Amino acid sequence: MDKQFQKIRDDFPILKQRINDEPLVYLDSAATSQKPQAVIDSITNYYQTINANTHRSVYTLGQRATDEYELARKKVQRFIKAKSSKEVIFTKGTTDSLNLVASTYGEKNIQAGDEIVITYMEHHSNLIPWQQLALRKNAVLKYIELTSDGQLDMDDARSKITDKTKIVAVAHVSNVLGVTNDVQELAQITHSHNAVIVIDGAQAAPHQPIDVQKIDADFYAFSGHKMLSPMGIGVLYGKKKLLEKMPPYQFGGEMINSVDKFDSTWSELPWKFEAGTQNVSGAIGLSKAIDYLNNLGMENIAEYEQELVDYALPKLLAIRGLTVYGPQDSTVHNGVISLNLNNLHPHDVATAFDMDGVAVRAGHHCAQPLMKYLGVVATIRASFYFYNTKADVDKLLQAIADTKEFFRV
Amino acid sequence: MDKQFQKIRDDFPILKQRINDEPLVYLDSAATSQKPQAVIDSITNYYQTINANTHRSVYTLGQRATDEYELARKKVQRFIKAKSSKEVIFTKGTTDSLNLVASTYGEKNIQAGDEIVITYMEHHSNLIPWQQLALRKNAVLKYIELTSDGQLDMDDARSKITDKTKIVAVAHVSNVLGVTNDVQELAQITHSHNAVIVIDGAQAAPHQPIDVQKIDADFYAFSGHKMLSPMGIGVLYGKKKLLEKMPPYQFGGEMINSVDKFDSTWSELPWKFEAGTQNVSGAIGLSKAIDYLNNLGMENIAEYEQELVDYALPKLLAIRGLTVYGPQDSTVHNGVISLNLNNLHPHDVATAFDMDGVAVRAGHHCAQPLMKYLGVVATIRASFYFYNTKADVDKLLQAIADTKEFFRV
Repeated sequence: MDKQFQKIRDDFPILKQRINDEPLVYLDSAATSQKPQAVIDSITNYYQTINANTHRSVYTLGQRATDEYELARKKVQRFIKAKSSKEVIFTKGTTDSLNLVASTYGEKNIQAGDEIVITYMEHHSNLIPWQQLALRKNAVLKYIELTSDGQLDMDDARSKITDKTKIVAVAHVSNVLGVTNDVQELAQITHSHNAVIVIDGAQAAPHQPIDVQKIDADFYAFSGHKMLSPMGIGVLYGKKKLLEKMPPYQFGGEMINSVDKFDSTWSELPWKFEAGTQNVSGAIGLSKAIDYLNNLGMENIAEYEQELVDYALPKLLAIRGLTVYGPQDSTVHNGVISLNLNNLHPHDVATAFDMDGVAVRAGHHCAQPLMKYLGVVATIRASFYFYNTKADVDKLLQAIADTKEFFRV
Repeated sequence: MDKQFQKIRDDFPILKQRINDEPLVYLDSAATSQKPQAVIDSITNYYQTINANTHRSVYTLGQRATDEYELARKKVQRFIKAKSSKEVIFTKGTTDSLNLVASTYGEKNIQAGDEIVITYMEHHSNLIPWQQLALRKNAVLKYIELTSDGQLDMDDARSKITDKTKIVAVAHVSNVLGVTNDVQELAQITHSHNAVIVIDGAQAAPHQPIDVQKIDADFYAFSGHKMLSPMGIGVLYGKKKLLEKMPPYQFGGEMINSVDKFDSTWSELPWKFEAGTQNVSGAIGLSKAIDYLNNLGMENIAEYEQELVDYALPKLLAIRGLTVYGPQDSTVHNGVISLNLNNLHPHDVATAFDMDGVAVRAGHHCAQPLMKYLGVVATIRASFYFYNTKADVDKLLQAIADTKEFFRV
């Protein structure tokens, strides 16, 4: 499989860059992915031949733009196996999607004393909206603990999720620990208490097949830009029966049925949640990205990335002075690997790596409560996508060796 | 000047399209503008050479992306003559910007019995957020009347804006009537009653020089996509002293200072209002669009578009059976011209025009209260930008003649 994926790199023009006179080794796909030429071309093609505002148009270009935009929605529907395209809302990204749910479903359904359950591994975007909702409503925010190797403690989940729980918000895949949570099991627990589950799929949807019906997710959020698409486009999946009862999030054009002087009625799904001019080129780019991913096969992508982790993790664990966070067992560790090197500051490490052309992230990864839980201020994080290779892993290992030598640790 | 602007059409690849075997005559720039090749290239270039997530990066690509993103903010600051780049918030577009103000400043400052003053010519995006805020807060929503030729009745404005008024929300330029409101005068009236003014600049910023300090605007919102930029990027300008006191709108990455388990503190301006991964390529496209507009000169653009209106309006007014909404005096009518042809349904008219390659919009233009005020269900709307020419006006006139002949009216 390695060979097939090796060829793929030609599709990503940015990977031919040299950084500090070294070939770019891009290991920050958990922050944002690179884009294949086919996606870049789809943007160019849109603006050169189709561009118009959607829905309110009767002329040819407007119709074409509308058709392509709604086709993108269908593509997303099939990609996540949603029952209906009405359940697919285009947003700005995962953060926008999650804020939408907290500000509409959350605002409407959470009362004083209700409980919202999240986990210690949540990204700020699936943490602060619930924390602030709990503060506004005098509701109780509870955190599911982690096991010693950084996996979600399912026993604790079973004890924290109770009949008082109204919302469970959880990451499908951690953006720090490299673990995949059993969201299907969590959904079952949640539903047995008549609560709803909100899943942050930002780190999952780009890397594995998603089936929202099989998971039985109530809400599932993800970003285009982490899965080959342009920036500024994301998705909120929601069950139709829930979305229908929710008030709108933003008010403006296209989300209305009728507007009177002193009140208004709302459009049907999905448009009720899409106020104003939408990011049509973003949706079309996402559509093209899904074609690209489907062509490779999400199963193949998952399998190939697992091969990279199986190759990398034992080698990293063998390095003296290097701490690897999350599971040490590569079979339960995906392509997000957080590290610290001796007592060096992660920013210094990342800067040193950059001299070797190796791009990794350094910081709290928008997960400050998790950092405190782990007892660290920050980590460096190397994250893989299918365009990475074992040669990239070797360059990461070399960068670590060079950094150790430079700092004499 | 006509010649200079004639040449400009070569910069816009989409204008070479043929529609129904006729050259495209694009007269729907009030809905969205077309993009010059330089802007399209800037997107391609970004994804091929720079793409990375901003702010949280220490590696080279991440730094470059951050620098370009913040440079775009500076460009916007100078474009609207804001005092500080901290006053420039990137949003999804005008609708997002206006909802942000209503949900933060509005939610915090409006009490039962307070008055919010808007006008009959507001787009839904500057109407429904205030209408729904008034409903939530038991506040009073008031509409400023229009004069018989569709201009804002400034006497009525002076009587409606009182010491009870907390917010005045008004379009700088109407998206239906082709009038420019004296927002500087309105700001003065608003401030004399210690209220704040929120200006929807979506139809103004692309077409004339904007000086938010001269206007003394408290908030000023506009979209990139109506001014040559990619979709999915917009701006909210706000006075620093107001923005600083406002709670955040969305919660997530990058907008925080520190996150504890049960509460958080927020980042400084402008990042407090920019949660999650931003549309970096959108901001860079907007930056390039501003370069393009500045190169032409906003004064020149305004003057050239006025020439087009001076040419078109008398000819349109002379057509039997054609109703022109808004002022009949071309000196106070800008490049947004709403029309009805006899009793024909606007959709039928727009469809007929499309057969001649002429793209105009038909509908309520997201201004249903205005449609009711005018006593119509819908209109067609031809809107110009600087890439239109007198030849385009002639083709519009021909399309009207053809349509009259076809429908025998």
